[in-house]
Amino acid sequence: MSDLDLKQFSVRTDLALEAKEIAEKGGAVIPGVSATTLDDNGIRITTLSVDNEHGSQAIGKMIGNYVTLEVPGLRKHDSSLQDRVSTHFAKQFELFLQRIGVHQNAKALIVGLGNWNVTPDALGPIVVENVLVTRHYFELMPNDVAPGYRPVSAVSPGVLGITGIESSDIIKGIVEQSMPDFIVAIDALASKAIERVNTTIQISDTGIHPGSGIGNKRRGITEEIMGVPVIAIGVPTVMFASTIVNNCFEMMQKHFQSQTSNTGQILGLLDQMEENERLELVREILSPMGHDLLVTPKEVDEFIEDIGNIIASGLNAALHQAVDSTNVAAYTH
Amino acid sequence: MSDLDLKQFSVRTDLALEAKEIAEKGGAVIPGVSATTLDDNGIRITTLSVDNEHGSQAIGKMIGNYVTLEVPGLRKHDSSLQDRVSTHFAKQFELFLQRIGVHQNAKALIVGLGNWNVTPDALGPIVVENVLVTRHYFELMPNDVAPGYRPVSAVSPGVLGITGIESSDIIKGIVEQSMPDFIVAIDALASKAIERVNTTIQISDTGIHPGSGIGNKRRGITEEIMGVPVIAIGVPTVMFASTIVNNCFEMMQKHFQSQTSNTGQILGLLDQMEENERLELVREILSPMGHDLLVTPKEVDEFIEDIGNIIASGLNAALHQAVDSTNVAAYTH
Amino acid sequence: MSDLDLKQFSVRTDLALEAKEIAEKGGAVIPGVSATTLDDNGIRITTLSVDNEHGSQAIGKMIGNYVTLEVPGLRKHDSSLQDRVSTHFAKQFELFLQRIGVHQNAKALIVGLGNWNVTPDALGPIVVENVLVTRHYFELMPNDVAPGYRPVSAVSPGVLGITGIESSDIIKGIVEQSMPDFIVAIDALASKAIERVNTTIQISDTGIHPGSGIGNKRRGITEEIMGVPVIAIGVPTVMFASTIVNNCFEMMQKHFQSQTSNTGQILGLLDQMEENERLELVREILSPMGHDLLVTPKEVDEFIEDIGNIIASGLNAALHQAVDSTNVAAYTH
Amino acid sequence: MSDLDLKQFSVRTDLALEAKEIAEKGGAVIPGVSATTLDDNGIRITTLSVDNEHGSQAIGKMIGNYVTLEVPGLRKHDSSLQDRVSTHFAKQFELFLQRIGVHQNAKALIVGLGNWNVTPDALGPIVVENVLVTRHYFELMPNDVAPGYRPVSAVSPGVLGITGIESSDIIKGIVEQSMPDFIVAIDALASKAIERVNTTIQISDTGIHPGSGIGNKRRGITEEIMGVPVIAIGVPTVMFASTIVNNCFEMMQKHFQSQTSNTGQILGLLDQMEENERLELVREILSPMGHDLLVTPKEVDEFIEDIGNIIASGLNAALHQAVDSTNVAAYTH
Repeated sequence: MSDLDLKQFSVRTDLALEAKEIAEKGGAVIPGVSATTLDDNGIRITTLSVDNEHGSQAIGKMIGNYVTLEVPGLRKHDSSLQDRVSTHFAKQFELFLQRIGVHQNAKALIVGLGNWNVTPDALGPIVVENVLVTRHYFELMPNDVAPGYRPVSAVSPGVLGITGIESSDIIKGIVEQSMPDFIVAIDALASKAIERVNTTIQISDTGIHPGSGIGNKRRGITEEIMGVPVIAIGVPTVMFASTIVNNCFEMMQKHFQSQTSNTGQILGLLDQMEENERLELVREILSPMGHDLLVTPKEVDEFIEDIGNIIASGLNAALHQAVDSTNVAAYTH
Repeated sequence: MSDLDLKQFSVRTDLALEAKEIAEKGGAVIPGVSATTLDDNGIRITTLSVDNEHGSQAIGKMIGNYVTLEVPGLRKHDSSLQDRVSTHFAKQFELFLQRIGVHQNAKALIVGLGNWNVTPDALGPIVVENVLVTRHYFELMPNDVAPGYRPVSAVSPGVLGITGIESSDIIKGIVEQSMPDFIVAIDALASKAIERVNTTIQISDTGIHPGSGIGNKRRGITEEIMGVPVIAIGVPTVMFASTIVNNCFEMMQKHFQSQTSNTGQILGLLDQMEENERLELVREILSPMGHDLLVTPKEVDEFIEDIGNIIASGLNAALHQAVDSTNVAAYTH
Repeated sequence: MSDLDLKQFSVRTDLALEAKEIAEKGGAVIPGVSATTLDDNGIRITTLSVDNEHGSQAIGKMIGNYVTLEVPGLRKHDSSLQDRVSTHFAKQFELFLQRIGVHQNAKALIVGLGNWNVTPDALGPIVVENVLVTRHYFELMPNDVAPGYRPVSAVSPGVLGITGIESSDIIKGIVEQSMPDFIVAIDALASKAIERVNTTIQISDTGIHPGSGIGNKRRGITEEIMGVPVIAIGVPTVMFASTIVNNCFEMMQKHFQSQTSNTGQILGLLDQMEENERLELVREILSPMGHDLLVTPKEVDEFIEDIGNIIASGLNAALHQAVDSTNVAAYTH
Repeated sequence: MSDLDLKQFSVRTDLALEAKEIAEKGGAVIPGVSATTLDDNGIRITTLSVDNEHGSQAIGKMIGNYVTLEVPGLRKHDSSLQDRVSTHFAKQFELFLQRIGVHQNAKALIVGLGNWNVTPDALGPIVVENVLVTRHYFELMPNDVAPGYRPVSAVSPGVLGITGIESSDIIKGIVEQSMPDFIVAIDALASKAIERVNTTIQISDTGIHPGSGIGNKRRGITEEIMGVPVIAIGVPTVMFASTIVNNCFEMMQKHFQSQTSNTGQILGLLDQMEENERLELVREILSPMGHDLLVTPKEVDEFIEDIGNIIASGLNAALHQAVDSTNVAAYTH
């Protein structure tokens, strides 16, 4: 990842939910952005829409639809919670397709972005290995496919360092040859908050843009480029060391504020700074020595496997009427 | 693999060398096919060309160039032999490119055919993971690339069961986007002879055709389809149980013939049969019960890894002037 | 594997069922060996006991209990069949423990023999990675373990080439330190018949002896050496090329005999030979050129994974009362 | 890892070098601890000995010998630096063996501690897979072993959650059966400083104690328990989120102090705190919400593979006279 890419992470977030929270700090109300929230026993689902240019400017996210599942307990390797998340994800994804007008027989191409040799970046490829692929049955024996399935294909384009070709170009080539009606692109993200790493899943219809995700994409995967709608599924799997430090400062401030009225002197200069200013300072201190690492939890292998299975199961149930939450596990490893 | 594909294996071989040997049985001389052989201490290199339609008909292989490296000791995990094979392969591949008129700066796309989840079919993907990829340097900073390199990209398109899309279509899409000057396609083959499994490497310029290789390709990877020359690298990694039986019959016949003059009664009815007829019989007997399995040696993991590294090292040295046999190992895992 | 080990495979089988079949050829009745058979829709279960020295001599297997599950369809990757096999295996294993007097709270050590780097030899290690391990809960918080579980530990000792130590010695050391009440040892076997490869599971209480399995064990894993009962679970995963040839000869003979009365001249000299004599001939012909390979089906990765999961699920249900066939899948990957 | 174990990390370090640095803060001179340092172009080697009980108390490390290689550039995937580190490591390890009186023919058992399913904890098992194992040659054909080798065996005992048995017990059992003269135990550690993660290797002769390493060992691997000397090789591969925060505070303080004279008000309350007190505060703030994660760099797969190969190559050269820095690569993957 080039320094250029890293810069971008410092000033923006890939999650619309976070962008809205940041914009609303200090109590601002943002016209042009609407959101509803649903809680189900440890799973919070936020349906957010950026309705106009005003809202888009205010939170720095494109006009479009965003759904976020937040599951703080997801790092606990609890298989019954995982099943519930998968079922919720399937339902939300199905509703999302309806909302943006994707027909139930529309042909899907699932794209697993990221580097399969770098565990926290391997989420996309893991999902691709576990989804139910059916397009070839429709091509080779269209009359024999049972009802309740749609044509689904799936590829992992790899990353620039492995292929020498932009993943955007690889996908465009495949789209032109295989002609799907829409694309579902899964990507690992860098998080702005410790608590979101491997606990949050975002669905959006605004495509994938250069500088998003962990990998160093230089060209986007968007409806404009691909010619068909692109639904992105993003999961934060890494964070910068500076993010951790900055998060902790904030928690400290809140902690002390609740204990004393004389907040001015608690963290000294840091108290005076705005969040972005403080983050910039932390990065200036850590970066020169190469200490602003992108880090991931020690249990990354298990977390990526678990979330990969949740998304694959959810996609199988959402994309095929014949697959539902009771038999969904049979379709993944 | 469908029954249809299996049928094809019974009447043809992917190796031009074998096809020629079969056609020459009984002492026939084949006009239109020429071959020269070079031996170097356990490595036999045969350069074969099918020059005209007559030769093509006679041996059942397309007009074109074929180079075969036969290394009976390759299954012995001998690293100094492996280095020698890699060096020979590199030299032969470089000569091959010259012979068919591929310029030394021509842009290469390396394609690893086959299924990475099926070890004996994973040769292509393993090569792709180990070759030196440079195309992105030429794209992103063309003035900074050191002399002695050419643009090389590499992809593993997967198989129909994983992607739902013909590998031929995936490659065509990528070719149209990334515009290489030629393709190098690596594929695992089914062998007609026990002794060739994981010991033989064939280079050819006739492309890859449906029914060749282990996987069930329905469309070819040829210059006609791709618009650029296709150099195929094939390695036999599996064989049918019926092949083993048929090979053994032949060895038995030779064994007995050297011991007795009364050859007529040794193997009874089998003595009377032609090779193809006998193979057909064996397959008729094994197939109904599902016993005509495609098998691979027990040590398949190690064999595929070893040959994958030989080919990757050889390609690195052949494609880049700056990489030679003394530093080639540094460019693979 | 040394030539010595290979020799042993030619004259013996690791499956008591096969040994009995061979001994009974020509209609012999074997006193001292009793067997009952149960068929359930594609699964055949044979419970066999060698009751005395006479029976042991006759079939070349030790006095003891043997249960075999034969499932010809197991190579078809049918998950509902796999579930049924797992359930049957669990029930048979539980009955087996009762029959040989292993108490339901007896402490188990599960041993996965074989080389994890050689896929067809990796069955044991795969089972070990998927069984439910509980011993440490009993050691660390004995009062908090829910009812319905027994102490189970599990290790994969590796092979001589990886560790430099006999697996028998490693296990003995672990047994002395951890003091289990019995051992369950899983091992991959070489098959005498194409149709048994990855379709047959044998449970026995006679331990594991040098020369059995694929790996080159020089010391046994037996009650005599370990001091506690050893239950072996064996699955044929490889076969010799010579086995395939010999199997095919036999099928040919039967095929021709059903078509003609003049059987004498069909396969010439081969007709006159006994099975062992013929196998010896085949091996003499294939071996000198290194062609008597141990081979495994092309799909070995999938087959080993599938059977590993069947055995792990079955052991979990058999060893723990709290785990049964309805929730067994939750305890394996 | 239990909360208990986590606590221990907060107050101690596994690296003697760090312990000495912490104790020397403020300029204290520590009698009973001596150290010499050697620098070679990006590699710093510190040879440290804790000579008496006084020194041991002062820095909180046992009496014994410690050698540390610090290589800040090791995360840059530079293969020529890696070769140099491996050569230095080999030389230091050989000197270490001489210093503590291990004879050049003494039999070694290499133990790879940690969990092979958790990448940052898999260092030990990766080393074990790559070392040259020779013990079985000495056992099976003692007269045929070439000069320049010693008997070396190697095992990865796994972790409690996989085996149900303490790794200490497994090793003790194997030691009693295979009777090595000394043990080399490789373990992944938690770091107290960002800059040490995957850049530092420590050799020591004080064994491995409960609470050290990443895994939750409850019993030690020491000469007292094993009956033979234990040489530990430790590499920090993970760090706590709180460590990152605390490191950053310290860097901030230094940064500001160099810019202003009025240091008292810069970080407010934090300026007044001692390091341990401040770390405690950070942990109190992060822990309740489960945010004091153990994290590892995103590129963990590559880092662990690289350092595993360095250590394996180094051990091969150090343990066998016949293997040296010019041919060492041939003995690892």
